[in-house]
Amino acid sequence: MSLLLQELSRSPFFLAAPKPQRLCSSPIGIEPSLNMFVGMGRPAWKEARLTLQRLLSAEDPTLRDNTSLREKSLLKMNEVEMLLPTVIGDYTDFFSSMHHAKNCGTIFRGPENPIPVNWFHLPIAYHGRASSVVISGTDIIRPRGQGYPTEKSPPYFGPTQKLDFELEMAAIVGPGNELGKSINVDEAADHIFGLVLMNDWSARDIQAWEYVPLGPFLGKSFGTTISPWIVTLDALEPFACDAPKQDPQPLPYLAESKHINYDIPLEVWIKPAGHEHPVIVTRSNFNNLYWTLTQQLAHHTINGCNLRPGDLLGTGTISGPEAESFGCLLELTWNGQKPLNLIGAARKFLEDGDEVFFTACCKGKDYNVGFGSCTGKVLPAIP
Amino acid sequence: MSLLLQELSRSPFFLAAPKPQRLCSSPIGIEPSLNMFVGMGRPAWKEARLTLQRLLSAEDPTLRDNTSLREKSLLKMNEVEMLLPTVIGDYTDFFSSMHHAKNCGTIFRGPENPIPVNWFHLPIAYHGRASSVVISGTDIIRPRGQGYPTEKSPPYFGPTQKLDFELEMAAIVGPGNELGKSINVDEAADHIFGLVLMNDWSARDIQAWEYVPLGPFLGKSFGTTISPWIVTLDALEPFACDAPKQDPQPLPYLAESKHINYDIPLEVWIKPAGHEHPVIVTRSNFNNLYWTLTQQLAHHTINGCNLRPGDLLGTGTISGPEAESFGCLLELTWNGQKPLNLIGAARKFLEDGDEVFFTACCKGKDYNVGFGSCTGKVLPAIP
Repeated sequence: MSLLLQELSRSPFFLAAPKPQRLCSSPIGIEPSLNMFVGMGRPAWKEARLTLQRLLSAEDPTLRDNTSLREKSLLKMNEVEMLLPTVIGDYTDFFSSMHHAKNCGTIFRGPENPIPVNWFHLPIAYHGRASSVVISGTDIIRPRGQGYPTEKSPPYFGPTQKLDFELEMAAIVGPGNELGKSINVDEAADHIFGLVLMNDWSARDIQAWEYVPLGPFLGKSFGTTISPWIVTLDALEPFACDAPKQDPQPLPYLAESKHINYDIPLEVWIKPAGHEHPVIVTRSNFNNLYWTLTQQLAHHTINGCNLRPGDLLGTGTISGPEAESFGCLLELTWNGQKPLNLIGAARKFLEDGDEVFFTACCKGKDYNVGFGSCTGKVLPAIP
Repeated sequence: MSLLLQELSRSPFFLAAPKPQRLCSSPIGIEPSLNMFVGMGRPAWKEARLTLQRLLSAEDPTLRDNTSLREKSLLKMNEVEMLLPTVIGDYTDFFSSMHHAKNCGTIFRGPENPIPVNWFHLPIAYHGRASSVVISGTDIIRPRGQGYPTEKSPPYFGPTQKLDFELEMAAIVGPGNELGKSINVDEAADHIFGLVLMNDWSARDIQAWEYVPLGPFLGKSFGTTISPWIVTLDALEPFACDAPKQDPQPLPYLAESKHINYDIPLEVWIKPAGHEHPVIVTRSNFNNLYWTLTQQLAHHTINGCNLRPGDLLGTGTISGPEAESFGCLLELTWNGQKPLNLIGAARKFLEDGDEVFFTACCKGKDYNVGFGSCTGKVLPAIP
């Protein structure tokens, strides 16, 4: 079931809120995106959450006993079209799983010192492309581009031969900061509205050829898929867990008093073209991140860079330590050297018609917190 | 003098336009930015330009003989506050001057093969930060961050010790493209509304430490200054000139039938803190670019990445071949080894209180095409 906030917000349920007018009429009532709401900060989020929980509980008669309102505000999931939850001003992608950094470094640069020396001192990131972030279910057209030449041959041009997924999650920024001002790491959680699943589709041949010295560009910018609803940090609180101990000690601006991750099991499934059922290809967990969300956000603003409500901060590919928990095909097939066997379909990289599904589900005592789906189907390149 | 289009657009001067309603009431009449107008494409731009030229000519009585309208629509430059001309959805920065690539490569990676092998095959670029693009005249606060460690010492933290300018120009995208579709290089000029001056402020110590392997991030994202008005490609047509011959031949998707640059002389002046007059520090020219604007745009979309009206495409630092035409202090002082003498003030990099001015002016037979100013003053870091 899907809850139509617009309908509910016409009713006077939010009148106890500190800023009922704004909360009711603007952000979730009329605005086509959640930007204004996520920019209002934690007190408004908490109040909205509590009100909705009350309205949806079996004990509260308001919605339970009002058939007409229930019919207007509760819709079947398959009858609604999900849209991007926020207008994304800027999209940043971090690189915060040590296992992913180590595997990629080994594959692209060799086994000696695969992790760059700066990696342990700061959460490395790059700016991604905001315009091509799409909602779960959007088809992904195989990108064309220049591929890495071998030896002394020139680069080749054509549809990518190494199309990959990247298993990520992403934070949606709440209140931002003024240009020139930084956000303290211990206050950073108040600037994060919540999390979504994210597939940072990647063309490995294009990326490998273009990325020196200015980083990934066309190997990523053809599409990035996110799940349609945002799970708030409040909802994730029961799943908080210790983040990995960091060595060397981070610099003071990254040293946080509450160094936590969340226990969010993640899975990737692929339905190969022409097959009926998806096959699981990896099981990872959000808690594999070395740099936390709050460290990422504090680092992002330490130079005064301004974040805006609705901005998207990707974690980077979330790989675990074991081969079965690697977060992309580049790692799972070791750059195509060890094809995956998907029950009758061997895959080095993604083929046209393949569908990729990400899922995430936190298991509580008697409830789950799900992230919805983050899926996309690969379409052939346009000639 | 500054021309108030909003006032003029209330009058019926644009009624001959193909879509007078949209041109008059929306893009330049009511919208707070030019995004809708630049998205309308070349026919609308040409019509608006011709109409304005007619209205401003001494022969035409409409404005000349209407004191009231003239008073309302012509304002003194020093009485208006210039704003960002478009809302920038995404900002991309290229790396298209060979001299700049060679100098930076030599400084950062040594004199052997300073230019990466991919550089001659594709216009290398990275995604920049859109939120921190500011209008000329905005102060720039010295960013803090981690600096490059020496030998085996840990990285240092504090205000950047190597604050630099980068002399660039940038294209403002006109009509964009749908996600998944590419723009042909021979049609790319129709997707470029015009050019602005751009200062891509850079913190060289932060950049040098963070940029491997994902490219520049906090070393750039604290501020990027652009000039307030956009000079259209139509206005630059008289200054078109041959672009450099390219070797190796670019791949077919980058091979263009009209391979042109523009002859736009560029200057950088610095007014050192406490001094009264600015001193010139470099003279370059837009025609130093190896990769043209149209090649940049075609490359940007070859993977299906969607551009949107108002997007900003920086050229990268425009350095010429001679030391006096280098486009940033990193090159001009060779990473601080050869301080510049600014008439009594020696500079390795920018100091607090320094003001940087970019100018560009195309000299026609009996007229100039100016780009306005692109300036900023360095303020001390916030502790």
